[in-house]
Amino acid sequence: MSRFWSPLVDTLKPYVAGEQPQMRDLVKLNTNENPYGPSPRALAAIKAAADDALRLYPDPMSTKLREAVAAHHRVKADQIFVGNSSDEVLALVFQALLKHERPLAFPDVTYSFYPVWCGLYGVSYREVPLDGELRIDIDAFPGDCGAIIFANPNAPTGHALARAEIERLLKAHPDIPVVIDEAYVDFGAESTIPLIAAYPNLLVTHTLSKSRSLAGLRIGLAFGQRDLIDALERVKDSFNSYPLDRLAQAGATAAYEDVDWFEQCRAKVIASRERLTDSLRKLGFDVLPSKANFVFARHPVHAAADLQRALREKAIIVRRFDKPRTKDFLRITVGTDAECERLAAALKEILRWNEGAGPR
Amino acid sequence: MSRFWSPLVDTLKPYVAGEQPQMRDLVKLNTNENPYGPSPRALAAIKAAADDALRLYPDPMSTKLREAVAAHHRVKADQIFVGNSSDEVLALVFQALLKHERPLAFPDVTYSFYPVWCGLYGVSYREVPLDGELRIDIDAFPGDCGAIIFANPNAPTGHALARAEIERLLKAHPDIPVVIDEAYVDFGAESTIPLIAAYPNLLVTHTLSKSRSLAGLRIGLAFGQRDLIDALERVKDSFNSYPLDRLAQAGATAAYEDVDWFEQCRAKVIASRERLTDSLRKLGFDVLPSKANFVFARHPVHAAADLQRALREKAIIVRRFDKPRTKDFLRITVGTDAECERLAAALKEILRWNEGAGPR
Repeated sequence: MSRFWSPLVDTLKPYVAGEQPQMRDLVKLNTNENPYGPSPRALAAIKAAADDALRLYPDPMSTKLREAVAAHHRVKADQIFVGNSSDEVLALVFQALLKHERPLAFPDVTYSFYPVWCGLYGVSYREVPLDGELRIDIDAFPGDCGAIIFANPNAPTGHALARAEIERLLKAHPDIPVVIDEAYVDFGAESTIPLIAAYPNLLVTHTLSKSRSLAGLRIGLAFGQRDLIDALERVKDSFNSYPLDRLAQAGATAAYEDVDWFEQCRAKVIASRERLTDSLRKLGFDVLPSKANFVFARHPVHAAADLQRALREKAIIVRRFDKPRTKDFLRITVGTDAECERLAAALKEILRWNEGAGPR
Repeated sequence: MSRFWSPLVDTLKPYVAGEQPQMRDLVKLNTNENPYGPSPRALAAIKAAADDALRLYPDPMSTKLREAVAAHHRVKADQIFVGNSSDEVLALVFQALLKHERPLAFPDVTYSFYPVWCGLYGVSYREVPLDGELRIDIDAFPGDCGAIIFANPNAPTGHALARAEIERLLKAHPDIPVVIDEAYVDFGAESTIPLIAAYPNLLVTHTLSKSRSLAGLRIGLAFGQRDLIDALERVKDSFNSYPLDRLAQAGATAAYEDVDWFEQCRAKVIASRERLTDSLRKLGFDVLPSKANFVFARHPVHAAADLQRALREKAIIVRRFDKPRTKDFLRITVGTDAECERLAAALKEILRWNEGAGPR
């Protein structure tokens, strides 16, 4: 604590993102990036936008981008909010919609940035335990909470709830905001965007970092009725008028227009996920059924921390969350088939070593 | 007020940015953009970075950019904080360094986003009047404030304080954070960056939107001793881990490396500012002496609001701040010489009309 700091700073417990090592020839399966590059049309649009017009401020409302997203999801452009990554969008959501007298509720296992934002904005919260299968139980959310948020598919489990289940939750809690963080929804889960027309309390967030291969460009979205979007715009215009640069707006717009590329990439990732799940199960892992671009797996014998360390020695990086209910699992991003095979081969070798069959 | 909003939202008074009209053939002198494009090396670096690596998260610490900036300003890279525009950097500064039991102090005329951030983060503040010449009076800051912030050159007046004056302020207030917002410093004022080594309470902020012609790319910087930068990093890592996209990092790094382009552009803007000041004075305007890329001018006879409206009819956009001490002034961005001449010719015609010499 420094005498120059606002007192808040000393109380913060910052989020720890997955590492971004600069090593070469790494198999990087730790931050759920897409193994395939972004749409060539997005890259072309960025290059075309890299001109003298960069001297001018960007469109503060990202109008063209919102129009492209609106056409894709069949909503109105004014039902869309955009920000510099879904992390920024979510941070503004915590400020604008989730701070009430009664506590916010979220699962005890979900995106680990949620409690950090609660700390930053002074939002009180309550954690609702997942069930024994590490699934979200819709009926476990208390009747007296001030708001609800969770990821669907959930992170880091990969489990997805059906849209009808979430609709049941919306009906049970009509008077509080319910935020569904759909960062991974394009890999096989049902989006709740079609529900926003009927549920004024529903806000849905998306990212272009996963299914659209643009983690390096930082774009996030929120979908909801005007009342909710209005709150986000008021906070945004009290924070940073121009959150999305010209290149990000141009690239993201083109990425939304290239539906074929999007469909091909996500189909490949989904197919690889199923193959990876099979090969991990053959090695004896318990693998949760995933609808995301990662799998959450534990071995009944070998400690996850040991496996993570041994993989790292082979230049393969996976993620582990050192909390009571998750510490025994590895969260493994779905890479290309070649990367998944390299991971499986490495694990096979490590398990054999650990069982004493070979030299370490 | 909606039942779904956090109560804070209803209390916000969002910042109103200068408009970004999409009209063609506009002379846009309202948001202090640079009339010259960014460094060709910056554009080339952006194009080179628009590749498959955009599928990966950016460096969360913007290491190469901070190293380039450090080399330019002869400080250490770890004395630099970067963000998605200086507005974002300043917003984090308000959270991290300016919220204390005693109120923050800033001039009654300065960057109008400061009171907005106070509202967003619950920072109490006190406005310190400029003197009769609309200059900041160092001795007017009260001894019992919790922190101090102002722009130097100040906005929208364009007045600059000498570095020695600011050093006197730092010595008078050694126990509180003092933030100098140097958005416009490269157009002729003295930077206080050389003072950070000696003053642990000094934080300096910069932007690449003005002198480096990259308003469309959104990059801001802060300079200070580790203790202050540490507070900003803690808040940033509790808000958004990856604030700067890959393209912005690449373009900004190259812009800092192209010193010649920077020197040429700012010299041209400074020369045009002096010519613009002369021609406005010849038309009878009072023009404050500016060290920024804008001038602040009032006419003793013609109302600023009328002049602004008449200019707009001629597709020339300038800015006016409708507050008691500033409402009589126009803030005019320094454009190219051709743009400045078009403005002066338009004003000459408008003044003649207003004086009854010709038809409206």
